[in-house]
Amino acid sequence: MTEQTAPTTAAGEPATARGEQTRQLILDTAMRLFRERGYARTTMRAIAQEAGVAVGNAYYYFGSKDHLIQEFYARAQVEHRAAARPVLDRESDFAARLAGVLHAGVDVLTPSHDFAASFFKTAAEPTSPLSPFSEESSAPRRAAVDLFAEVLDGSTARVDAELRPHLPELLWLAYMGVVLYWVHDRSPGQAKTRKLIDGAVPLIDRLVGLSRLRVLRPVTRQVLDLIRTLRH
Amino acid sequence: MTEQTAPTTAAGEPATARGEQTRQLILDTAMRLFRERGYARTTMRAIAQEAGVAVGNAYYYFGSKDHLIQEFYARAQVEHRAAARPVLDRESDFAARLAGVLHAGVDVLTPSHDFAASFFKTAAEPTSPLSPFSEESSAPRRAAVDLFAEVLDGSTARVDAELRPHLPELLWLAYMGVVLYWVHDRSPGQAKTRKLIDGAVPLIDRLVGLSRLRVLRPVTRQVLDLIRTLRH
Repeated sequence: MTEQTAPTTAAGEPATARGEQTRQLILDTAMRLFRERGYARTTMRAIAQEAGVAVGNAYYYFGSKDHLIQEFYARAQVEHRAAARPVLDRESDFAARLAGVLHAGVDVLTPSHDFAASFFKTAAEPTSPLSPFSEESSAPRRAAVDLFAEVLDGSTARVDAELRPHLPELLWLAYMGVVLYWVHDRSPGQAKTRKLIDGAVPLIDRLVGLSRLRVLRPVTRQVLDLIRTLRH
Repeated sequence: MTEQTAPTTAAGEPATARGEQTRQLILDTAMRLFRERGYARTTMRAIAQEAGVAVGNAYYYFGSKDHLIQEFYARAQVEHRAAARPVLDRESDFAARLAGVLHAGVDVLTPSHDFAASFFKTAAEPTSPLSPFSEESSAPRRAAVDLFAEVLDGSTARVDAELRPHLPELLWLAYMGVVLYWVHDRSPGQAKTRKLIDGAVPLIDRLVGLSRLRVLRPVTRQVLDLIRTLRH
């Protein structure tokens, strides 16, 4: 097995083409099995068998099933960014940009809906490193917040100065709310999640616009204080 | 076993004292085992054994583990109402009443925190009748919304006329958000959940007060429209 000496990409080093191919094969196989059998019932052994690689080889690329999910997050994030590119290049209206990015996120997740529901049971565990709020998820989380910074920065929206630096993270939190809703959405094709986005975006857009009103400044401050308190 | 002929209280009929005792014993035992072993790992057989009743007898009172959880919801709701009574009798300020009821809800849930985390994995399942939004949970849900109606009705708060009839349900939704946060709260004694309540209440209070401003009327309408859309 030549892959045994291939450098892993997890450390950011360049992988050999052959190593990268095997890595990708294991990941694709894992995602398929998670979808077909659920996350909890899929073992590393089954993934290796189905991919036609030795179990030790599978563990060489991914230390555990959790690492596979971290990779899933990282790839979903890259795909999300790519899927959002056209709308971000085209639109300058804040609401249109936000709606585009939220819909693009759901587009990317849609093929994983069944799997996400089964897997969410694990990610919702308080002690899970797979929670989107965990230390282990900080890299894809930062990348996701950056995407919402781009939604704002490329837009013509005028935002209260105190709110502005925090708005990307608030938008990402709203996106996490959308994903939470989507995971539990039983409507055909998750149509209700689309309605949630279409209803929430004009609301967020209006609130962002109103943030500059003197009467709403204390509300902004209270929201930011609350988030700050909960983070520490 | 005289309990075999005892009428079940689930139908609202009066139970014999002996039957009610057995029912209570099974429920208490189940809650203890759920806490000790987790929801998924606790079988009806183990509950019956531990309670010292025949398995068939346990099934006579509770058709499944799900029925035990429905009973847990119903009792938690009754306890919540009782725990909130003093603050509702004492305070007329909306924020004080709301804070009291939210803290009382967490007080009642606190002994079940470990169990709730393990059990939440089941309730979060899209197909679970144990979801607080399910048809099966409608009775305790209505009772809970009623409690928030009392928070509002007994207060001196002045609320936008269009918002008022919907506010109890919105407050209950906010409470569900608090419970979701509490389930995942790893801070000692779930102290962060208390901070969330103390930070969120003044914010909600302010928004409710502002709801009567002309500039915020469209926001109220958008929120209500969105919830209506998602319900159908």
